[in-house]
Amino acid sequence: MKLTPDKKILIVGLGLLGGSYARALTKKGYTVKCITRSQSTVDYALGEKMVAYAATVPDPELIGEADLIVIALYPNVFLKWIGEYGKYIKKGAFVTDVTGVKSCIVYEVQSLLPDGVEFIASHPMAGREVSGAQNSDDSIFKGANYIVTPTGKNTEDGIELCKSLGETLGFARISELSPEEHDEMIAFVSQLTHCIAVSLMNANDNEKLCEYTGDSFRDLTRIARINEDMWTELFLLNKKALIKELDCFADQLMRMRGYIERGDAEGLKEMMRTSTERRSWFDKK
Amino acid sequence: MKLTPDKKILIVGLGLLGGSYARALTKKGYTVKCITRSQSTVDYALGEKMVAYAATVPDPELIGEADLIVIALYPNVFLKWIGEYGKYIKKGAFVTDVTGVKSCIVYEVQSLLPDGVEFIASHPMAGREVSGAQNSDDSIFKGANYIVTPTGKNTEDGIELCKSLGETLGFARISELSPEEHDEMIAFVSQLTHCIAVSLMNANDNEKLCEYTGDSFRDLTRIARINEDMWTELFLLNKKALIKELDCFADQLMRMRGYIERGDAEGLKEMMRTSTERRSWFDKK
Repeated sequence: MKLTPDKKILIVGLGLLGGSYARALTKKGYTVKCITRSQSTVDYALGEKMVAYAATVPDPELIGEADLIVIALYPNVFLKWIGEYGKYIKKGAFVTDVTGVKSCIVYEVQSLLPDGVEFIASHPMAGREVSGAQNSDDSIFKGANYIVTPTGKNTEDGIELCKSLGETLGFARISELSPEEHDEMIAFVSQLTHCIAVSLMNANDNEKLCEYTGDSFRDLTRIARINEDMWTELFLLNKKALIKELDCFADQLMRMRGYIERGDAEGLKEMMRTSTERRSWFDKK
Repeated sequence: MKLTPDKKILIVGLGLLGGSYARALTKKGYTVKCITRSQSTVDYALGEKMVAYAATVPDPELIGEADLIVIALYPNVFLKWIGEYGKYIKKGAFVTDVTGVKSCIVYEVQSLLPDGVEFIASHPMAGREVSGAQNSDDSIFKGANYIVTPTGKNTEDGIELCKSLGETLGFARISELSPEEHDEMIAFVSQLTHCIAVSLMNANDNEKLCEYTGDSFRDLTRIARINEDMWTELFLLNKKALIKELDCFADQLMRMRGYIERGDAEGLKEMMRTSTERRSWFDKK
């Protein structure tokens, strides 16, 4: 089942991602309604014509008429929302999300929803260092990855609908991973790198150093400007996979430290040859 | 004493940096000669009109006529070169370098040179992920830092000449640090970040992950493509300062790991607030 403009779409939570979804889908001719917490976001969204209708109250009628609901809330609020309002979703509707961790969320949401409502999880790997609907921008999806993470409970229809949502939003690559594969991957390519950037900025309080930095330092620490509420939730919800990756990284860092301390040039060069070769994988495509 | 076009300039070692110096100075009307190891580089440099004269042999006459000599060799080869050919440098001449570490080099070079020859060390903080004169490009100096690291043996004339070389090359900021301050700074902003990128690429051999990376991972690992011979020398020559920074960073990473393991959201948020605030220092200017 492809996403088609006759489908009524409801976005819950109009932050950076929810807002960017709204902009993209409205531009493509879809009727998008939204529920979001603050009146100022409602006013902004209506003023920008990002949505056809916006409310701060989770009105059962509004929830009940939607064919596709995109939940764009922080993970813990997301679970609470489904527990409270999931019962108003109509039979035959589909629900998806934007959450950055999956295995700790997907099964619980699927068990909370009424029979006949299908939750098919997805992760749009896009973002900015700023938050809120006011910073939303549908160009962040260009060139980015959209990952669908089905479970045994999902149907072919649900998976196809979710992938076609990713295509409609303008993502460059749509792929499928299990929730567990997703969480391992995200622990390494995204969460670990944020841990590194945050730790690096915590390691030195010499403000004068910024006079001497080059591009490499600036690139490496760009993500040290971080939304602490969201990332703290994401880290804690993916604890096991993240700690595994942190430990692998720390082992390699200590291996390097050992070579430096012992003056083992050959050991250092071998690590650098490995990193040069592996980094080249990321230039392809 | 300012650098003026009547000064005869000799560059020793026409790699990425030596070649970029040659291009910039020749464009500004200086007569630049060079000594470099391979005949193919000599042919290339003459073909490109980067230099007025180039030789593979360290001819005493060529060395003896220079007013300013820029040594652009790897640190260990640099020390060997000074030991062998320093005696040919004329009284009143100035020598500078491009080396990325200072305290282990500067005092030794100053003690090796004949009386009346002044070595004033400097570090052009510019580079690329590729090497060789064929990749040289004087636009790499634009917006970059040039650091002069004088000792008690240097004169006002020497320091001024070195700074005006940095200006002539087109650097954005010229500053002065002691060799020891320089090495501490470089251990944090440059060497540690390269250690991190190399360790990160060594921590995971899953080639498929590159399908899922976003800009943050790509930015963080750009410098994992690394010249293993040069960086191994630089790391080992700055062992003490680098190990100190590595340990500070590892401590913070383990602090973060502890918060994640114990589910300490407030501890994580505090680290993220610190990193967000400190990272903003680097956006200024």
